[in-house]
Amino acid sequence: MIYLDNAATTRPYDEVVETVTEVLANRYGNPSSLHRLGMEAEDIITEARKTVAASIGAKETEIYFAPSGTLANNTAVLGYLRRNKHSGNKVLISSVEHASVYNIGKYLSDIGYQVEYIPIKNYEPDWEWLEEHLDETTALVSMMAVNNETGTVFDIKRIRQMIAKKGLKTVLHSDCIQAYGKLELSVREFGADLMTFSGHKIGAPKGIGVLYARKGILLTSLYVGGGQEDQLFSGTENVANIAGFSRAVKLFLKEKPVEKVKVLSQLFLEKLSPDILINSKNTLGTIVNISMNLRSEIVLHMLESEGIYVSSGSACSEKKGGNNRVLEAFSVSKAMQDTAIRVSFSHANTEEEILIAAEKINEIYWKNKKK
Amino acid sequence: MIYLDNAATTRPYDEVVETVTEVLANRYGNPSSLHRLGMEAEDIITEARKTVAASIGAKETEIYFAPSGTLANNTAVLGYLRRNKHSGNKVLISSVEHASVYNIGKYLSDIGYQVEYIPIKNYEPDWEWLEEHLDETTALVSMMAVNNETGTVFDIKRIRQMIAKKGLKTVLHSDCIQAYGKLELSVREFGADLMTFSGHKIGAPKGIGVLYARKGILLTSLYVGGGQEDQLFSGTENVANIAGFSRAVKLFLKEKPVEKVKVLSQLFLEKLSPDILINSKNTLGTIVNISMNLRSEIVLHMLESEGIYVSSGSACSEKKGGNNRVLEAFSVSKAMQDTAIRVSFSHANTEEEILIAAEKINEIYWKNKKK
Repeated sequence: MIYLDNAATTRPYDEVVETVTEVLANRYGNPSSLHRLGMEAEDIITEARKTVAASIGAKETEIYFAPSGTLANNTAVLGYLRRNKHSGNKVLISSVEHASVYNIGKYLSDIGYQVEYIPIKNYEPDWEWLEEHLDETTALVSMMAVNNETGTVFDIKRIRQMIAKKGLKTVLHSDCIQAYGKLELSVREFGADLMTFSGHKIGAPKGIGVLYARKGILLTSLYVGGGQEDQLFSGTENVANIAGFSRAVKLFLKEKPVEKVKVLSQLFLEKLSPDILINSKNTLGTIVNISMNLRSEIVLHMLESEGIYVSSGSACSEKKGGNNRVLEAFSVSKAMQDTAIRVSFSHANTEEEILIAAEKINEIYWKNKKK
Repeated sequence: MIYLDNAATTRPYDEVVETVTEVLANRYGNPSSLHRLGMEAEDIITEARKTVAASIGAKETEIYFAPSGTLANNTAVLGYLRRNKHSGNKVLISSVEHASVYNIGKYLSDIGYQVEYIPIKNYEPDWEWLEEHLDETTALVSMMAVNNETGTVFDIKRIRQMIAKKGLKTVLHSDCIQAYGKLELSVREFGADLMTFSGHKIGAPKGIGVLYARKGILLTSLYVGGGQEDQLFSGTENVANIAGFSRAVKLFLKEKPVEKVKVLSQLFLEKLSPDILINSKNTLGTIVNISMNLRSEIVLHMLESEGIYVSSGSACSEKKGGNNRVLEAFSVSKAMQDTAIRVSFSHANTEEEILIAAEKINEIYWKNKKK
């Protein structure tokens, strides 16, 4: 099996699976309990918070563990807007966001916010448009760090500088789910006030996310309960997954898997027939999006029959069919959207796998071309 | 180590840990992916949904997997009220609910709902009070099935009958987190329209909950995203924990651990010095709440030094100190609240452990009595 759908989800590191198993079996206390078992569980969370904070140069008190990246994103955006009064009610959201941010835009429009979607021009935020639309009525801007369909890296710092130059109080949120562990993210340099990560994109389990909120940025939780994670994410903490997340962070800090991934994606691009079109530009090297001469689903199944797993787009949108909203916003033509294939890499992939995958994709392309 | 804090959290079954590990390592696909790995992950969820539905005689379409019991509770209550218009805005919530329901009451009051707390009389809902307060303006009633501090079982069916007799459209929610897997819960017999369960109270991992919503009861989700779990709980599904939950359900259906637990708690009560006061009545046998002649914290630490783990109240409230709101509502005196100890049992406990624990508790009691 050659798994090249790592943007949808990664296989957890063996070490992470070990950690999760160990915590489940032996350190199962409730972190809120006052006895030793509870304190041991709490220590795991404290240690994990330190690890995550250190990985981006943040304070421990700026890091919150969430049940998912989706809940982290929702709490960042809705939690900020519900808590803070702003002189205006404009919210700018990039047109290529993942559903867990994009759909907040729809919700905000329904309840009276003036939501505008930042267009993409040449695989960058349309800077002129932003210059024009970002003003004193803008409460929040949300722009992801790395796109989940094309792997394109966006310049978040430039948005921060634009906000500063205009002297605005606008808060900047960045979904860093495809960036964390892959792109150098230092809170000082990066520029976002709110950042979000997800475990299962970095070799940790599904069901764990992280929200970074810069000191002083106050948020309202979307639900209530025992008040865990400073009231933001009530409910008994998922200690095993928090430990697994921390373990994955330590691994990627040590092994810097993205360096290997960049080499692999470069190799893939080199081996790919030059007739196959590339939809991804300005990328991090974790994702390559190509357009074939056959509908995506057909290519997907042909590759699967060879044991190669890729996707036609983001997992969340794949099943729904219809237009690819994200590629559309990247100005990818309809014909190319319909034949798009997303190939996404991880540390677990080998050069051999990449060579086989490129070869099989070329074969499919040429076989169909000759018909 | 003698672990008697099972109402706070249980040690996962060994078989559950195995299942979680296996899914993490080998069946790590994203359930939304169209390829085999994705479909395998989806099959796990489908199978788990069948298992949970069958365990309470529900339809599969009535079962939703949530990231926690807290989110399941919040979605049940807030999700129902946000989605459905009702002639009145009264909400009745029992005064002994867990924070994940009780605190929703506070929130609802803040946004204009008329929230009233159902008093407890002789370890039962105050039926006269309910008769008087339950009327056509009541949109929702929330009453837990088994209390998490005393183990008291409440008659949910009688509330359902009261609603029916009065011909009301009131919806009935019941937090079944301490009941599921322990009390016979059949949706036909039980009477609630909305029920909630949590994995880590039944030998499954932390970070997985279940919401049952009777067919026709529509809910609004508290957050948005990829639309998983019929839009209610967006975010990539925690497949490993869902599988672990399902495994735990199969185990308790087969082994009926509550029968063993009832014997253990009976033994504990028999061995306890008759001078020690009992705060729990009408119980299921899973929890015994006693009052000592020393402050709870002191007893907790004395027992811990002997390797015995109990609690002074619910884990979520323990750290906050102050009054015990729940015991107060059960009309337990202040002196008895301050000296209360919750002992909670599971299938994993042995008779020998119970005998040792009772003996140590008696020793502490008599040693202090003689001073």
